[in-house]
Amino acid sequence: MSISHRARPEIQAMAGYQPGEQPAPGQRVIKLNTNENPYPAPEVVLAAIREQVAGPALRRYPVPDARPVREAAARAYGLEPDQVVVGNGSDDLLTMLLRTFVAPGAKVVAPAPTYSLYGTLTAIQGGTYREVPWGVGGSLLIRAIADADPALVLITRPNAPFGFACGLDQVSALCRAVDAPVVLDEAYADFADDNGLSLLADHPNLIVTRSFSKGFSLAGLRLGLGFAHPEAAAQLHKVRDSYNVDALAQAAATAALDNLDAYRPNLDAVIGERTRLAAALRERGLGVAESQANFLFARVPDGDGRPWYEALKARGVLIRYFPEPEELADGLRISVGTPEENDALLAALDAVSAG
Amino acid sequence: MSISHRARPEIQAMAGYQPGEQPAPGQRVIKLNTNENPYPAPEVVLAAIREQVAGPALRRYPVPDARPVREAAARAYGLEPDQVVVGNGSDDLLTMLLRTFVAPGAKVVAPAPTYSLYGTLTAIQGGTYREVPWGVGGSLLIRAIADADPALVLITRPNAPFGFACGLDQVSALCRAVDAPVVLDEAYADFADDNGLSLLADHPNLIVTRSFSKGFSLAGLRLGLGFAHPEAAAQLHKVRDSYNVDALAQAAATAALDNLDAYRPNLDAVIGERTRLAAALRERGLGVAESQANFLFARVPDGDGRPWYEALKARGVLIRYFPEPEELADGLRISVGTPEENDALLAALDAVSAG
Repeated sequence: MSISHRARPEIQAMAGYQPGEQPAPGQRVIKLNTNENPYPAPEVVLAAIREQVAGPALRRYPVPDARPVREAAARAYGLEPDQVVVGNGSDDLLTMLLRTFVAPGAKVVAPAPTYSLYGTLTAIQGGTYREVPWGVGGSLLIRAIADADPALVLITRPNAPFGFACGLDQVSALCRAVDAPVVLDEAYADFADDNGLSLLADHPNLIVTRSFSKGFSLAGLRLGLGFAHPEAAAQLHKVRDSYNVDALAQAAATAALDNLDAYRPNLDAVIGERTRLAAALRERGLGVAESQANFLFARVPDGDGRPWYEALKARGVLIRYFPEPEELADGLRISVGTPEENDALLAALDAVSAG
Repeated sequence: MSISHRARPEIQAMAGYQPGEQPAPGQRVIKLNTNENPYPAPEVVLAAIREQVAGPALRRYPVPDARPVREAAARAYGLEPDQVVVGNGSDDLLTMLLRTFVAPGAKVVAPAPTYSLYGTLTAIQGGTYREVPWGVGGSLLIRAIADADPALVLITRPNAPFGFACGLDQVSALCRAVDAPVVLDEAYADFADDNGLSLLADHPNLIVTRSFSKGFSLAGLRLGLGFAHPEAAAQLHKVRDSYNVDALAQAAATAALDNLDAYRPNLDAVIGERTRLAAALRERGLGVAESQANFLFARVPDGDGRPWYEALKARGVLIRYFPEPEELADGLRISVGTPEENDALLAALDAVSAG
């Protein structure tokens, strides 16, 4: 008999988070299912990584607190290094946030639909996860969240999987309404018209997280940033693994943050294709909401996304389909790819429609 | 006012783990303080990393469960892939173990002195950390650990910071004596005469962890392995961050595990220098115990390690000094470096002795 019966009951009872499928190395697919950037990182970032591979960095421990990255982030965004925490992906920052603020039995509240990892992370902490529908809207939504007495609030902005960005005034009002950390998960902010960093000065309970996996074309390296009041950041550092961000990732992150302009053509290309793809999908009868992210949520006319997902997969096009909750089951979440990838998706959709 | 008052009381009360100091990039020091390997990883490993930088791996998510690394580890060590969990450093595996098995109030027990991170990780879980002195010895030590009713037992083998390896029969006896996971932290096993992997078949509650930071010359990349019964491994995967090991690290780990022979010259060089350095330190009047790791614990003749640590540092040689607990305060923990680095240490020691 194994020792798994000694695992905490919460862990035994849970299923674990299921990330979107990754094709096997070498498998030829049009991959529009996990919101990666279709363009490579700029040469200046790749060069920074290659330089580390050539030197002594691989055999030495990295800078434990990623100070050079934090300084670069502070320069890039007009903040102070002690407001910045670096994570092994923004998932690592979410883990730190839950471990810091969520005791057993404490409540985590999120407007939904949202990133399904939040529930998993809450379960690991032995906390209670409660979703409030975005549809409640406005001041009623804020009151519903505050009335739930949260230990932590999590807002994805732009939203996943719908892509809309709630008003920044709504984020401010929520920060004022709760005596708890409000986490603004800005994984997709690089594709949006605005973001919440400017709210940090007025709201000491606001914590903003960012990912390098979408806008920065570095999903393979695992990098995320957290921005918080210095005192809150200091608590997060305590639960951070001592050397959580490796030396190559630190070099890449520093180069990326010091060369934000080099990313502009990639971002503009994705944003342009987002507009074109949304129009093309609507022409084909799918219901596509406005998106501030690098994906579109497209509702199929016949109310069931699964056969579309499967037919597209059979034609070598991977998109994301969520069987649950029910409000997502008529939709396809489609990452915005290169023009060629998007054309391939549209051609596959036409072939599926033609039966 | 920041929101740090809403952090869990355990987190507010703790100080956070302090890793050994890392010199600033470019600072010229003889660095013998954090047990890195003084030799670079073999070319086959570096080539595997470079190949990934050139391809699409950086902008895509890595394989979530690091399956190729787990298969390579299974090949290398004669196990099955479902017995293997890959971590972002072996610290990540320790974090997974604590999150899986340690509920608030549960007891974590370790023979001491040992890796001081264990106490920090226990505190984050709200558990109780208890150390039993190695000096208790033999069956009394095992009884003391079992009587403490542990939820988890942590044994560093070879021990840090002393370097000795307890008998494998002692590990077996402990596994039989407790109904709890027994973690054998084998961060330094690549330098030892034997290891505990062969015990896995007989003890379903045994979990062995390994690091790529010492024997594999990849501290900068953050890689660790956990070996466990498949059912226990399945629980650990649930608390693992979805994409915890990046694409470059996965490529490096696979290449390293498929080319263990390429590391043999590095390991033999370190083991040879360990013998030479120990003898040279003893000639100089320091008390040096036998070590199965890539470091030596050397007790200074006058009973206080601090002035030696500081004098060596002033001469550009970094070693590790532990002011606490008291039984460590007369010692210097010295990583085994290249012959040139070890000679520089010895010359600096002679200069310090000469006043």
